[in-house]
Amino acid sequence: MNAAIVAIGDELVLGQVVDTNSAWLSARLAARGVMTLLHKTVPDDVDATAGAVREAAQAADLVIVTGGLGPTQDDLTREALARVLGVPLERHAPSVERIAAFFRRIGRAMPDANQAQAMCPRGARMLDNDWGTAPGIEARVGRARVFAVPGVPREMEGMFGRYILPAIADPSGRSILTEALRTFGAGESAVAEKLGELMRRDRRPTVGTTASAGVVTVRIRSDFPTAAEAERELAATVQEAERRLGDVVFGRGDVTLAQAVGEQLRRRGKTLVTAESCTGGLVGKLLTDVPGSSAYYLGGWVVYANRAKSSELGVAAELIERHGAVSDAVARAMAEGALARSGADYGAALTGIAGPDGGTADKPVGTVWVALARSGQSAAVVKSERFRFPGTREVVRERAALTALNILRLDLLRA
Amino acid sequence: MNAAIVAIGDELVLGQVVDTNSAWLSARLAARGVMTLLHKTVPDDVDATAGAVREAAQAADLVIVTGGLGPTQDDLTREALARVLGVPLERHAPSVERIAAFFRRIGRAMPDANQAQAMCPRGARMLDNDWGTAPGIEARVGRARVFAVPGVPREMEGMFGRYILPAIADPSGRSILTEALRTFGAGESAVAEKLGELMRRDRRPTVGTTASAGVVTVRIRSDFPTAAEAERELAATVQEAERRLGDVVFGRGDVTLAQAVGEQLRRRGKTLVTAESCTGGLVGKLLTDVPGSSAYYLGGWVVYANRAKSSELGVAAELIERHGAVSDAVARAMAEGALARSGADYGAALTGIAGPDGGTADKPVGTVWVALARSGQSAAVVKSERFRFPGTREVVRERAALTALNILRLDLLRA
Repeated sequence: MNAAIVAIGDELVLGQVVDTNSAWLSARLAARGVMTLLHKTVPDDVDATAGAVREAAQAADLVIVTGGLGPTQDDLTREALARVLGVPLERHAPSVERIAAFFRRIGRAMPDANQAQAMCPRGARMLDNDWGTAPGIEARVGRARVFAVPGVPREMEGMFGRYILPAIADPSGRSILTEALRTFGAGESAVAEKLGELMRRDRRPTVGTTASAGVVTVRIRSDFPTAAEAERELAATVQEAERRLGDVVFGRGDVTLAQAVGEQLRRRGKTLVTAESCTGGLVGKLLTDVPGSSAYYLGGWVVYANRAKSSELGVAAELIERHGAVSDAVARAMAEGALARSGADYGAALTGIAGPDGGTADKPVGTVWVALARSGQSAAVVKSERFRFPGTREVVRERAALTALNILRLDLLRA
Repeated sequence: MNAAIVAIGDELVLGQVVDTNSAWLSARLAARGVMTLLHKTVPDDVDATAGAVREAAQAADLVIVTGGLGPTQDDLTREALARVLGVPLERHAPSVERIAAFFRRIGRAMPDANQAQAMCPRGARMLDNDWGTAPGIEARVGRARVFAVPGVPREMEGMFGRYILPAIADPSGRSILTEALRTFGAGESAVAEKLGELMRRDRRPTVGTTASAGVVTVRIRSDFPTAAEAERELAATVQEAERRLGDVVFGRGDVTLAQAVGEQLRRRGKTLVTAESCTGGLVGKLLTDVPGSSAYYLGGWVVYANRAKSSELGVAAELIERHGAVSDAVARAMAEGALARSGADYGAALTGIAGPDGGTADKPVGTVWVALARSGQSAAVVKSERFRFPGTREVVRERAALTALNILRLDLLRA
């Protein structure tokens, strides 16, 4: 099975927006053994869209069209599909009702324009969208199955999982299984060194690495004639990779570091508070991305101003003056203060210079102190460490937040 | 003049790498009045590359091919161009010498493989590359000028400036200018309704909309024979669009809502604190994404647990018990508590049910109360409003955080 992806939008061919959807889709298709033959991007234009869909349907078994399903006059994918199919557009009553219900739920009147989103090429299938108002459309063009889905990444991703993924079955009968091991705390080349000959190009299952925001993911792909073989070989390689990597592995699949830490806190019945300066709430945000995090995350302080560090966490002003806000002493005092004021089991504190300004010779941009305090100790602070993260403000903040979570994870592992 | 862009690479159609080159090139072409008609991405394959170049040369006056010029066996753009032109590849002696000189400069022997980079389709022109080893190639295919440049962004950008930009002195002299208006608080169709006939497909400048995470962007494109006309017409349409949209517009270009709010706070010399429950630190994270936000953002409280709402912000436990944590009364008390404890000018509070669990019949998932308190008022709370956001936990939290920022923005506008 192979695929072609068509992205629609003036904003794309004008270079105002980078098309990330096509790469996202291609990666997911590849993981299922479906090779993408082409990406094509065209403007909001009926002729161009219809031409691209025709071309894609001639080239590939599976065509995914993203974008052009909004409620406005420049959203023309419905018209283009109807033209390719040689059929009229018809009002699809259940979709009108779904869109109306969507607006009722959010307590607003449905604008007339949204009626257009319920138009369906005769004979095509409307695909309910649980993530927004625009239904998708499925149709057969020649021998190709064509799926049109919204261009909003979140909606596109939801629709892919719901409708397109089930339509992909490899007719060769081969079985391709994949697993991902998520690691934090070692660079990509250090991970590769630990994996050693598992990464040889001619080895099967294949083992590769990708890196993003400090998380190095080890991707294992097991491609064998039978499911039993693919499963057995996958399990053996996963086990061997985990053995070699040790505690830098924090989980499998799509798990985030915040989920992994949360799971450990929950299992041990421990609670956590945060005291954030340079990350400004990001650690709390990551922790509360996880549903049910209220079971272990009590909350925290964003002490961005020095005054707040003193008034809210009892960090002595004199300490800040003597050592600076970005220092071992202040990080420790923040973690201790958070622990003392909350009665939680763990307190994590971060203070640093995210940049782009504010760096000095001995505290350059990217300098971050992370401290971890644990209750029930004679000395509450169990760890305080200085880091120097390279990169932009965004990268420094993200790396700092994940590092704090990882320090907590390693302490919980050893507890 | 118009253009087509062809990107070559297995890594692109496998989704391992996002193609940013095509958007980069399109934006620069648009600024010079050249409209891009299509982007096409194909794997490292001679037939696919030759086919894409042929198609692009038929569609457009200018064709830019990126990638496939490296030294390895999967770099096939040279072969594909020779096939399209119906000519053989010939060794280009000056390029061999340049590549050899490049390796001498970095103190390494030139690998044999790099000889391949000096092969040129007969009759085509080699383009010296000062940023790497791979020369580019320029050729005429039918009426189109075709430029093949390396896929490495830095090299591609250098070659674009050196060779392609001088070639797009548009004989028509047309000029294309663009602007984006960023809005929050109205859905895409409501924005379209306000814009009315400005969005007619046959109108110039053209006006379109895109939506992402609650932010609706109005994109205006002004395409006229002269720069003076394009500028004048763009300004007139921007002004008219802003007049019709009113205060839902929070800025132009790439500005974020947190930047817009921050700019207003800074200009008025006001400070802000946050009290977050369901968003868990996300509002603070968004505010501190902006460098220099310490000038107006003092910090905040993540009061995820009810106990923290009481101990840190003085929300009476009895109030929580009577009305529930997700209520007008508690949102108000959180905002007032944050204001009272910090001495800031503004306090923004959020409490809600982000889901997927925790919803009830009268407080379903997605219910969020946002309260804004302002100092110096007899009644500190100036606004408290209940929202019902549809979607996943992530969507609810993002929408809630942006809504809180928007409520503050609107109050600052009126202050």
